[in-house]
Amino acid sequence: MRAATISDGQIVVADRPDPEPGQGEILVRVRAAGLNAADLLQRQGFYPAPPGSPPDIPGMELAGEVVARGPNATRFADGDRVMAIVGGGAQAELAVVHERVAMPVPGNLSWDEAGGFPEAFTTAHDALFTQCGLKMGERALIHGAAGGVGVAGVQLAAAAGASVTATVRNPDLRAAVEALGSAIGPCQVAASDGWETLGPFDVVLELIGAPNMAGNLASLALGGRIAVIGVGGGGQADINLLALMQARGRIHGSTLRARPLEDKAAAARAVERHVLPRVEAGAIKVPLAATFALADAAQAYERFARGGKLGKIVITC
Amino acid sequence: MRAATISDGQIVVADRPDPEPGQGEILVRVRAAGLNAADLLQRQGFYPAPPGSPPDIPGMELAGEVVARGPNATRFADGDRVMAIVGGGAQAELAVVHERVAMPVPGNLSWDEAGGFPEAFTTAHDALFTQCGLKMGERALIHGAAGGVGVAGVQLAAAAGASVTATVRNPDLRAAVEALGSAIGPCQVAASDGWETLGPFDVVLELIGAPNMAGNLASLALGGRIAVIGVGGGGQADINLLALMQARGRIHGSTLRARPLEDKAAAARAVERHVLPRVEAGAIKVPLAATFALADAAQAYERFARGGKLGKIVITC
Repeated sequence: MRAATISDGQIVVADRPDPEPGQGEILVRVRAAGLNAADLLQRQGFYPAPPGSPPDIPGMELAGEVVARGPNATRFADGDRVMAIVGGGAQAELAVVHERVAMPVPGNLSWDEAGGFPEAFTTAHDALFTQCGLKMGERALIHGAAGGVGVAGVQLAAAAGASVTATVRNPDLRAAVEALGSAIGPCQVAASDGWETLGPFDVVLELIGAPNMAGNLASLALGGRIAVIGVGGGGQADINLLALMQARGRIHGSTLRARPLEDKAAAARAVERHVLPRVEAGAIKVPLAATFALADAAQAYERFARGGKLGKIVITC
Repeated sequence: MRAATISDGQIVVADRPDPEPGQGEILVRVRAAGLNAADLLQRQGFYPAPPGSPPDIPGMELAGEVVARGPNATRFADGDRVMAIVGGGAQAELAVVHERVAMPVPGNLSWDEAGGFPEAFTTAHDALFTQCGLKMGERALIHGAAGGVGVAGVQLAAAAGASVTATVRNPDLRAAVEALGSAIGPCQVAASDGWETLGPFDVVLELIGAPNMAGNLASLALGGRIAVIGVGGGGQADINLLALMQARGRIHGSTLRARPLEDKAAAARAVERHVLPRVEAGAIKVPLAATFALADAAQAYERFARGGKLGKIVITC
């Protein structure tokens, strides 16, 4: 098979042996695979794939057709359209996925949309609901709202009946993010400074990191929860513990990639049950910023690294 | 009635009008009232009593007999032995308590022990179990373990089947804390430095604050939870958010005093159901460092401020 590979910090498309599905696994002919910030870190050598994933083929999410099944893989049939998060290896023509982590692709999603769905929506859903317990009527603050996880978070929070405030660094993308959220429920988009005064917030989805933490704490509602799932803006934060105590608040940190199979399967089941029906109904969209052919994977990475985009960058395989 | 009062940063015992129980409230003839760090802060003018509590009579926990009942107060009869957390006003001969916040005093607790029980044990129980979900077989780290909340935390964690590591600043108190915990379950006591290497820890009860946070994060188990309930050692912490993400950890902050009635009542019910049976069985003790008569309340505060004690300082009223 052809695959994007990491070689000396560069993305090089090369031939690799076809993977084979093991116990409970399915082999997927990948049609589209989204890019994520972790792919950039891995390209730089900072974020190696977890054990059991191909070490030099990047890609943490994919969509495609089932073309073979390992022993005791019974959830899907050959030809079924599936999408999934994986520990690595998604940016290739073929990939192996455990059937418990795979989800069916809704009929109204294109391959490109499906390839950019699993990581962003599972990450946002897990942080907002499983970790932070966001509820109807609460006020959610979504930082970095134009990115893949951000656009997922804005829509999921609005779809759950929360009132959404989003921050977007690139002012050119504010209107698009506001349109996306407002199509579902109350949504306002702020610049990346000045948002503190728009609180208090019950749940904060933090994709930037340290620079926002003082403001997050200052604008946290009583009983508020902050989910830190990205630290692109800096990881070392000065935290006022007394403010956290007075707000009776909590700060969660998490990553999806390093979790064991059972946790990823549980997260996939939650998305399947709670998010896919809203996608099938057309209420939730998967905005794509750009798509690149597998042969042009290196360009996809360059585009992703430049930032300032709305939604996902996807490689079609 | 006679009451400890705060006057220009000093504790002065003075006459005050008897309080009257309102709807759902009981009037308690206080027999003993414990001291807490918040009393010291209030004496210095930093931590005013919440609305509805006497502004100038300190004291956040008490034990005594019911001597009168307001309208619709039906949980207790006159003469019943009760104990409770209150927003303030405990260090006086009489105090008013909502009946939903009061708990019966186990027959084997003295007045002095009962007066030092509610705040410490409710705080530790709420942080360890309600917030952090400490479970059998997990590893708990209790900082500041010789103090009132600390000795409660060590015993509660051990009684729930957790494996306890405690830190104690005063080396003279290490053996006593270890004996208290080890009488219930596995318990080791460490000095206030060097404990990081004894992890990983699933749940951390943080009573000191900022100076411990780097070590707490470095020694946090996957899925670990840190409850920050005291910042006597400093409130401004440098937090490595990436370490929190990689541990998939959480940091909770909370105080008990500012919570609304329904939350305090819920916390009291949890202690009544889950802790009092173990106290009645003699498995959990209320260590007292010293008792002072109400007339000597100022001395009680001086003793509390010096620190280096095992367990509670209690004023007998």
